[in-house]
Amino acid sequence: MHAYRSHTCADLTAANVGDSVRLSGWVHRIRDHGGVLFIDLRDHYGITQVLADSDSPAFARIEKLRAEYCVRIDGVVKARDASLINTKLKTGEIEVYARDMVVLGAADDLPLPVFGEPDYPEETRLSYRFLDLRRETMQRNMVLRSDVVAEMRRRMWDQNFREFQTPIITASSPEGARDFLVPSRLHPGKFYALPQAPQQFKQLIMVSGYDRYFQIAPCFRDEDPRADRSPTDFYQLDLEMSFVEQDDVFAAVGPVLQGVFEKFGGGAKVDACADWPQIPYAEALLKYGTDKPDLRNPIEMQVVSEHFRGSGFAIFAKLLENDGTEIRAIPAPGGGSRKFCDRMNAFAQAQGLPGMGYIFWRAGADGLEAAGPLAKNIGPERTEAIRQQLGLGEGDAAFFLGGKPAQFEGVAGRARDEIGRELKLVDENRFAFAWIVDFPMYEETDDGKVDFSHNPFSMPQGGMDALSGDPLAVKGYQYDLACNGYELLSGAIRNHKPEIMYRAFEIAGYPNSEVDKRFGGMVKAFKYGAPPHGGCAAGIDRIVMLLAGEANIRQVIMFPMTQRAEDLLLDAPSDPTNEQLRELGLRLAPKD
Amino acid sequence: MHAYRSHTCADLTAANVGDSVRLSGWVHRIRDHGGVLFIDLRDHYGITQVLADSDSPAFARIEKLRAEYCVRIDGVVKARDASLINTKLKTGEIEVYARDMVVLGAADDLPLPVFGEPDYPEETRLSYRFLDLRRETMQRNMVLRSDVVAEMRRRMWDQNFREFQTPIITASSPEGARDFLVPSRLHPGKFYALPQAPQQFKQLIMVSGYDRYFQIAPCFRDEDPRADRSPTDFYQLDLEMSFVEQDDVFAAVGPVLQGVFEKFGGGAKVDACADWPQIPYAEALLKYGTDKPDLRNPIEMQVVSEHFRGSGFAIFAKLLENDGTEIRAIPAPGGGSRKFCDRMNAFAQAQGLPGMGYIFWRAGADGLEAAGPLAKNIGPERTEAIRQQLGLGEGDAAFFLGGKPAQFEGVAGRARDEIGRELKLVDENRFAFAWIVDFPMYEETDDGKVDFSHNPFSMPQGGMDALSGDPLAVKGYQYDLACNGYELLSGAIRNHKPEIMYRAFEIAGYPNSEVDKRFGGMVKAFKYGAPPHGGCAAGIDRIVMLLAGEANIRQVIMFPMTQRAEDLLLDAPSDPTNEQLRELGLRLAPKD
Repeated sequence: MHAYRSHTCADLTAANVGDSVRLSGWVHRIRDHGGVLFIDLRDHYGITQVLADSDSPAFARIEKLRAEYCVRIDGVVKARDASLINTKLKTGEIEVYARDMVVLGAADDLPLPVFGEPDYPEETRLSYRFLDLRRETMQRNMVLRSDVVAEMRRRMWDQNFREFQTPIITASSPEGARDFLVPSRLHPGKFYALPQAPQQFKQLIMVSGYDRYFQIAPCFRDEDPRADRSPTDFYQLDLEMSFVEQDDVFAAVGPVLQGVFEKFGGGAKVDACADWPQIPYAEALLKYGTDKPDLRNPIEMQVVSEHFRGSGFAIFAKLLENDGTEIRAIPAPGGGSRKFCDRMNAFAQAQGLPGMGYIFWRAGADGLEAAGPLAKNIGPERTEAIRQQLGLGEGDAAFFLGGKPAQFEGVAGRARDEIGRELKLVDENRFAFAWIVDFPMYEETDDGKVDFSHNPFSMPQGGMDALSGDPLAVKGYQYDLACNGYELLSGAIRNHKPEIMYRAFEIAGYPNSEVDKRFGGMVKAFKYGAPPHGGCAAGIDRIVMLLAGEANIRQVIMFPMTQRAEDLLLDAPSDPTNEQLRELGLRLAPKD
Repeated sequence: MHAYRSHTCADLTAANVGDSVRLSGWVHRIRDHGGVLFIDLRDHYGITQVLADSDSPAFARIEKLRAEYCVRIDGVVKARDASLINTKLKTGEIEVYARDMVVLGAADDLPLPVFGEPDYPEETRLSYRFLDLRRETMQRNMVLRSDVVAEMRRRMWDQNFREFQTPIITASSPEGARDFLVPSRLHPGKFYALPQAPQQFKQLIMVSGYDRYFQIAPCFRDEDPRADRSPTDFYQLDLEMSFVEQDDVFAAVGPVLQGVFEKFGGGAKVDACADWPQIPYAEALLKYGTDKPDLRNPIEMQVVSEHFRGSGFAIFAKLLENDGTEIRAIPAPGGGSRKFCDRMNAFAQAQGLPGMGYIFWRAGADGLEAAGPLAKNIGPERTEAIRQQLGLGEGDAAFFLGGKPAQFEGVAGRARDEIGRELKLVDENRFAFAWIVDFPMYEETDDGKVDFSHNPFSMPQGGMDALSGDPLAVKGYQYDLACNGYELLSGAIRNHKPEIMYRAFEIAGYPNSEVDKRFGGMVKAFKYGAPPHGGCAAGIDRIVMLLAGEANIRQVIMFPMTQRAEDLLLDAPSDPTNEQLRELGLRLAPKD
């Protein structure tokens, strides 16, 4: 017989009754029922009930076991009484009568119980991660993560993508976040950087002629603490393709994500990728107040400025006299009660706005009646025109926000979410995807200059010609994929033409010399027959969080850092030795 | 029609004759045959011949193309004359008559030609890696690497292993090599380390109950320059299993490697993993002079001390009077000529030994005759006894080395290789594997102390009992896999019992407090129900080198560092900014 097990703790069924078996696992729970000991023996695969009575030669030793001892049990499989069959357990038809028991690994008193998964402070959980990870929720999350990544790989391979590993100790990357640096010993005083993303390398791989690349790529950003983000490293499904346009990238990655969500989404409805809408960035902001809209929520905002221009509602009428202002409505079907409208108004106030005007429609003495102060101020004709534009009726409401869109869009988006949630308009059992396209290449900075608004390496729509007009009107071949209100993926068709790249950077205030200095390797490559190419990167931690229904990223990472970027189990970061500092040519600055 | 291609450059056959097609790729070669232009158009998948004569509207533009321009060709597929069919090319039945051509990416004069792959200095190749990687050899190597890794993953999944990612920014790891450090910004003056291997994490994963882990794991060691080693990062197939003994690990990883070598070994014979011998470490050193023997070479060394003790060959006879000395013979079947023997003797001298004594057997006047000075010195009886022990005959030779084995074993092993190669005893078309087992736990250091000889985390054979005797006699459950003279894999059954671990370290001079300080996280974990576990790690770069028949590691890595650990394309390492140093709380030490 094998030294440790003839079966796993998920294997035994009624077919094994009478067999002599050997199991190894952890004491999940031990109970003494009047001289009969019951152990739930747990391994990665399942739980098997083991029992020992005083006739068992191992009784005295088993009696001393405590939770989370790792043990080996030799015993005989017995059928349970029909009344005791546990249909929730794979092994629920049987139990194992223990004849022998060997302790493989003893356990001290537990700082963190595994059975029952009681709440514990995160610090305890991370300090004893090896116990925390034994919990069923964590086992399920980690297995899910592993299976999601495996499925992504399978689907990428099936589409003739090949995975190539790119360097991890490398040059500083121009992604805009802060690099982690690695001091060089062979070149004291110089530093490598960990890649914020394999952006430059994957573009070089295309210039090198490899056609279809992907990688489950570790990315490193020295971020400040945030609950939903790892402060050190995270993983992306990173891909790049040559000789493609935007729709080719969508057609490649769409089925991969659809397939992953269908397989691991717990039966929730997954929109077919062929039907994922392509929403221009400007339209997304208008309709949803965000570039990562939750399309499970059917509410779409509309511009209703004309109904307020010169109306009796002085605040909006006055607002509209200023350039660049408008009034938008958030329709709220089913929200037609003063109580609800007041609650949403309070929500907007809590978000820092003066409030949201509203109208709601109810049954009055003479049929449909529009209620709320706003309706009074603008009068029945304008009110009715608004109702018709929004397609609302009895029992519905509409909320109004005005000003420069950039100043209220964020709150409008959150109000839309809140309204949809409150009115139960959101189908919680669905994954709703949307491509957001036509991102602007540039934006105006606070000091009135023009800078890249997103990725400087994207190809401007219209190429060189577009760069001779108003930079703020230039759109890029750049896109995101939104799902249920989260950004899952970001990508672009790249700017592979050196002359267009120099011009694009010039507009943003970077002279050619600066481009050569910061991206010299890539620009050099583009001068030797660069193919048109594009791709994207999808955030794996975020996808697994969505699939697992978890809100905390540390629930889907095996060994996460704390929010303070510390490893409490292995003790990192820690003090360097003087020898290490000397070899690296470094000194510590005196503390302030 | 698609913006860039209707087919790849490997797609078109006689079945497409008459079709209008669109191809994109690189100008591999362009020739002008008296007013007809021939382009070998290349993409990742293949080459298609494109031609244009003066009737083509694109003739004038095509005439201006140079090598490595990236272009799009619109044209019509024509059948080649039977006499011009190129059976070496997938597309050799056809050619494409160009009607239109668009330059997608122009190319400056090439610093490194792609066509023909002429030799170039490595510095040029790495500075223009994006051109170097277009070469057929590199394309083949990179695809091979990708496919090998994919096959490993598939085979691991099929065996119910799951891949889990372990941290890359983490704590210093106790693997014995030098860590790369990463300064912490949130904790100025403290440092993370990049993992030399996920050793501690994979053991923690086992303690966390995950049963079967693997990872294609990036590993980081700050190594000094060496031709066959990456100076920064490398990849391992890393795996770990719970509730296993040594043979269970062999049974899991053996078929994975056998399968990979069979699939990608170019038809070379691959020994079946069930037949891979398990050779104890001491036996390997005796028979092969190394713990990574090349078993394609049938030569096995033997101890022949007794034939020389008290013999007329004074050097050996005297040597044997010292403790711990012995004489070993390297049989050389077919090496029976003075010329060959002298050449091998010179080889040993070049390796730093005084030389190798030898005997060879030839046909003499009275039958078999033993020749060489050594035979004369020890006389015919001893010479004949040696011949019989070694099983040699006419036309064969034997070489002799003496002293303390540690001092001559290395040269003996290299001489065995050289002899096998010279005599063509090595089957070059075979991958021959051997498990090397029973590594000693400890060794004596130069200053007479006892230290771990390999991995301190291995379980000593015999457990706690074995640790109360002579430490130098203790063997570990530790193993390597050798293939064709290279170490492909290393692993162990781990020491999961804290009390045995403390004792094992105590023998090597580490008090419990030091163990707690250096490996505190792991020792803590072992106190809460640790399962018996073990695993191994296989070097992926080395495996791909063997399969590709490459001797230089930079031939199988997409973007390797130079031997001086520099990235010549993206310029790393580089100077940090003052702002970066300030944020990290670091200063540069003044240069010497």
